[in-house]
Amino acid sequence: MAKISGRLGFKDGWFSETEAMWPGQKFSLALEGFSEEKSVLFAEKSDFQSIVVFRSAQYGNVLVLDGVIQLTEKDEFSFHEMMTHLPLFSHPDPKSVLIVGGGDGGVLREVCRHNCVEKVTLVDIDPMVLAVSRKFLSTATSFDDARVTIVHQDAAEFLADGVEGTYDVIIADTSDPMGPAESLFQPDFYESMHASLKEGGIVCAQCECMWIHLNMISDVFACCADIFDAVAYASTMVPSYPCGQIGFLLAGKGPDIILRSPCRTPSFQSHLKWYNPSVHRASFVLPQFVEDRLAPYTQTYLEDEEESDTMECFFSRCKLPSFLGNIFATHDSTLQTVGNGDRTE
Amino acid sequence: MAKISGRLGFKDGWFSETEAMWPGQKFSLALEGFSEEKSVLFAEKSDFQSIVVFRSAQYGNVLVLDGVIQLTEKDEFSFHEMMTHLPLFSHPDPKSVLIVGGGDGGVLREVCRHNCVEKVTLVDIDPMVLAVSRKFLSTATSFDDARVTIVHQDAAEFLADGVEGTYDVIIADTSDPMGPAESLFQPDFYESMHASLKEGGIVCAQCECMWIHLNMISDVFACCADIFDAVAYASTMVPSYPCGQIGFLLAGKGPDIILRSPCRTPSFQSHLKWYNPSVHRASFVLPQFVEDRLAPYTQTYLEDEEESDTMECFFSRCKLPSFLGNIFATHDSTLQTVGNGDRTE
Repeated sequence: MAKISGRLGFKDGWFSETEAMWPGQKFSLALEGFSEEKSVLFAEKSDFQSIVVFRSAQYGNVLVLDGVIQLTEKDEFSFHEMMTHLPLFSHPDPKSVLIVGGGDGGVLREVCRHNCVEKVTLVDIDPMVLAVSRKFLSTATSFDDARVTIVHQDAAEFLADGVEGTYDVIIADTSDPMGPAESLFQPDFYESMHASLKEGGIVCAQCECMWIHLNMISDVFACCADIFDAVAYASTMVPSYPCGQIGFLLAGKGPDIILRSPCRTPSFQSHLKWYNPSVHRASFVLPQFVEDRLAPYTQTYLEDEEESDTMECFFSRCKLPSFLGNIFATHDSTLQTVGNGDRTE
Repeated sequence: MAKISGRLGFKDGWFSETEAMWPGQKFSLALEGFSEEKSVLFAEKSDFQSIVVFRSAQYGNVLVLDGVIQLTEKDEFSFHEMMTHLPLFSHPDPKSVLIVGGGDGGVLREVCRHNCVEKVTLVDIDPMVLAVSRKFLSTATSFDDARVTIVHQDAAEFLADGVEGTYDVIIADTSDPMGPAESLFQPDFYESMHASLKEGGIVCAQCECMWIHLNMISDVFACCADIFDAVAYASTMVPSYPCGQIGFLLAGKGPDIILRSPCRTPSFQSHLKWYNPSVHRASFVLPQFVEDRLAPYTQTYLEDEEESDTMECFFSRCKLPSFLGNIFATHDSTLQTVGNGDRTE
């Protein structure tokens, strides 16, 4: 494995993300002591991607893959708690869990908090990500849990080779659809995940930023509304991700699944810093401009109705759009002229 | 008014915020055409602060005061809709509204959508901010509404000189507590706002970022829980603000005020891009680490109880802490070692 020469993104004591997928904006973190020499803990190229870990001044250790921040020790909990506990607490009794990607161990840590889970399989194509995370991230803690099996393989191939109807929950903790995660944003992959779920199973997949990639999110939803019985978008805040926001696609196999409301509550609530049952419900309440775009595809929850989770599912015919190839072409323009302030009441 | 020499923050076709109040992290926006010459529309020093407007590549025109982004045309709606409609839709019949600061016109635009409002007073110390906003921001639209009175004065003095019990709603749309807005973060100012409200009145004040300034937010809440009958924290997302998150202090004068749930609904919903009644309620659902810190002071809303907005108010004795002076000394450390992944269920 070659050392990375001319490390991308470091300059004058700061690390700045490359901004190919979010042009025109850039987030930067100060290095501890503003010193590249002292703060860069690891920088090599694996068979799949460049991997960098550095100590930041305010965000703890930071994992960077192909120039993009994957996690910081300071704020990773808002992502990993939500990505894990949204599907697991929406399922009445998850026993078998598959994690796609997730080599940094954050989702694994949260899954292992659930005593009902009997078996966790983590499929990450790149063993170096796991090795580096174990060594440098205080947040990567559960790789040695007796319930865990680790597989290094392309997850799309892994699922195609597997037995259908195996998992209660699949969590797709992927990087962005460039580089090794590209195959994990194809419609075929959502079909594979659907086939691999047991009846009553739930998928939760990283689903990008509503401010930048709403066209892509909408395409993914149109596609998954065809494949699954219910889909919904949940949102969380992560300061070190573009725009400070990232969303999740939740999708259920079976007619009676409620995604927007937990059916169990955490006995380990005192260990959580972000998730609680109210946060679960609130994360599915979307800003009006997002609601307007996703409403045709997502599980609608009429919160003003009586206690029961009344819902309707909409299906849209969808020609499995090649949304991946269109990411850059269809760069969203949320920038619109705002109403002229006319009194419209 | 002097031109600004050596304009702060521009380099190589990008604008970067100065990061005094959020050390170790930096947000940058590309200039349109990566050209400082073509994209900087205005850069002068007023009697109170430096004022810059530039055209960005992706975020429309951007207003910068003393090196800090105040708004971009792309994302301002998530801030201004929430800051305005949270207090106005929590009030049964707001007729008289005071806007403190808000010279960019965003809050004013949203207030003017409410037909029930009969009089709006906007007090901004700096006339140049209004002039520049009218000229360069497409989002600044309602300065000429017949109901609007504009006053250029320090808002703390304005309120001290005013008649008590005048306003139904006061919105404090201030910049950060450095420079001209400093007096607007003092306990005395919250006392003045309380005195200036009618019985049943509501204040909504800009209240910083939970990821960076939770100690300060907690101090403000302890202070306001003594002054007002109810306080609550609401959160929204703004990509161009630090960490992509900013919060609001909502505070009510009178025992029966419900802050967390609207008592009216927008007849102009189709003109809104962020706010709706569900978003109103969800914005008060806080991540566990914020809930833990603010729970002693804020209006608790038992959402699992029956329809009525059951609530309890807690009061904390508070010695009017000098939280302003402590911003930097008490820099929050949300960075904690995460649980070790032990099975705790």
